[in-house]
Amino acid sequence: MEIPVVRNILEANDRLADQLKKLFASRKMLVLNLMSSPGAGKTSILERTLADLAGEFKMAVIEGDLQTDNDARRVAATGAQAVQINTDGGCHLSSSMILEALDKLNLDGLDILFIENVGNLVCPAEFSLGEDSKVTLLSVTEGDDKPEKYPLMFHLSAVMVLNKVDLLPYVDFSMDKARQHASKLNADLKIFPVSCRTREGLEDWYAWLRAARATKN
Amino acid sequence: MEIPVVRNILEANDRLADQLKKLFASRKMLVLNLMSSPGAGKTSILERTLADLAGEFKMAVIEGDLQTDNDARRVAATGAQAVQINTDGGCHLSSSMILEALDKLNLDGLDILFIENVGNLVCPAEFSLGEDSKVTLLSVTEGDDKPEKYPLMFHLSAVMVLNKVDLLPYVDFSMDKARQHASKLNADLKIFPVSCRTREGLEDWYAWLRAARATKN
Repeated sequence: MEIPVVRNILEANDRLADQLKKLFASRKMLVLNLMSSPGAGKTSILERTLADLAGEFKMAVIEGDLQTDNDARRVAATGAQAVQINTDGGCHLSSSMILEALDKLNLDGLDILFIENVGNLVCPAEFSLGEDSKVTLLSVTEGDDKPEKYPLMFHLSAVMVLNKVDLLPYVDFSMDKARQHASKLNADLKIFPVSCRTREGLEDWYAWLRAARATKN
Repeated sequence: MEIPVVRNILEANDRLADQLKKLFASRKMLVLNLMSSPGAGKTSILERTLADLAGEFKMAVIEGDLQTDNDARRVAATGAQAVQINTDGGCHLSSSMILEALDKLNLDGLDILFIENVGNLVCPAEFSLGEDSKVTLLSVTEGDDKPEKYPLMFHLSAVMVLNKVDLLPYVDFSMDKARQHASKLNADLKIFPVSCRTREGLEDWYAWLRAARATKN
């Protein structure tokens, strides 16, 4: 007799992620999983994107945080639908949390669903949420060595947004070194240097978003 | 018959941490567990501290990273003993890793052992390494909302180092708000605003370190 005693959490998550993927595909929604260290600017780029593209796309956000609903309030202020997940200490979002959060959203006619993961450059990379693409943000204040030191997230992502480029004059950050390390991990990685503060580079990110969205039509 | 099928990882770690605590106490070493988001400046403050206090204390560092030995090389360049742990994807250090790393260090006459944890504002907080105190770094570029959003680490720490204050003119960061949130989580938390770049505030951190070290004599 076989006694199943230890559930493989990653496998269980992957099975549920496959179901989410099918659900998202059936609704022709583009779903992006935003990941980064705490404070790299995930909520800031969402605020900009939701406001700037409000006339083009119907968008919603699932916010993941250990505590507080600060981020959901911030993105909801742009007029977008938002739902907050509190993981209560959990270090990443999982597909089961996304399934629950979807219950609280009106998915009718939604073009793009953004999932903002818990601020953590390690754990969220391992848990698929059924997304079309992972988007990793790195802020230049964190240092150009981060792709090399936290490889999995950059390896699995379609996009690396290099945020806070307005601070480049004040920090030691080599754009070349960051690009080189990231591209070595992932030759297909698209890299967009931006500043959510000055709006520099945001149009390149929006162009990628439009192209990714167009694949769903 | 009771079949023990799932080991409680946290409890196993805590038991080993108790043993480490005894070992550290018997050697009268001060042991500090440094934690923060990726890129907040843990290695930078160690580089400064090891160089500036080299004449006063015998110090060593255990470096924790997913990959690379970059950080161990950086701190070893100051002349201090350093050993690198690669967690190979693991999101925090554990007591068993520390036990192994201790084998590679000469502990004779060591005054202070710094343990630089994996860059992660979530998971490392839950795993005691037998340290005397946890020291959390927060860089002002991460935002003043981080203590509120990642409460456990700040709740458990003796010290919060607020790093990169040289960048305060260029970011939206309220020192008062960060202090308020952190102090609400932990009334005894010592807060040291510093800049590893300009050296501002480092003397306050050194003064705390000397006082903490003095309790071991």
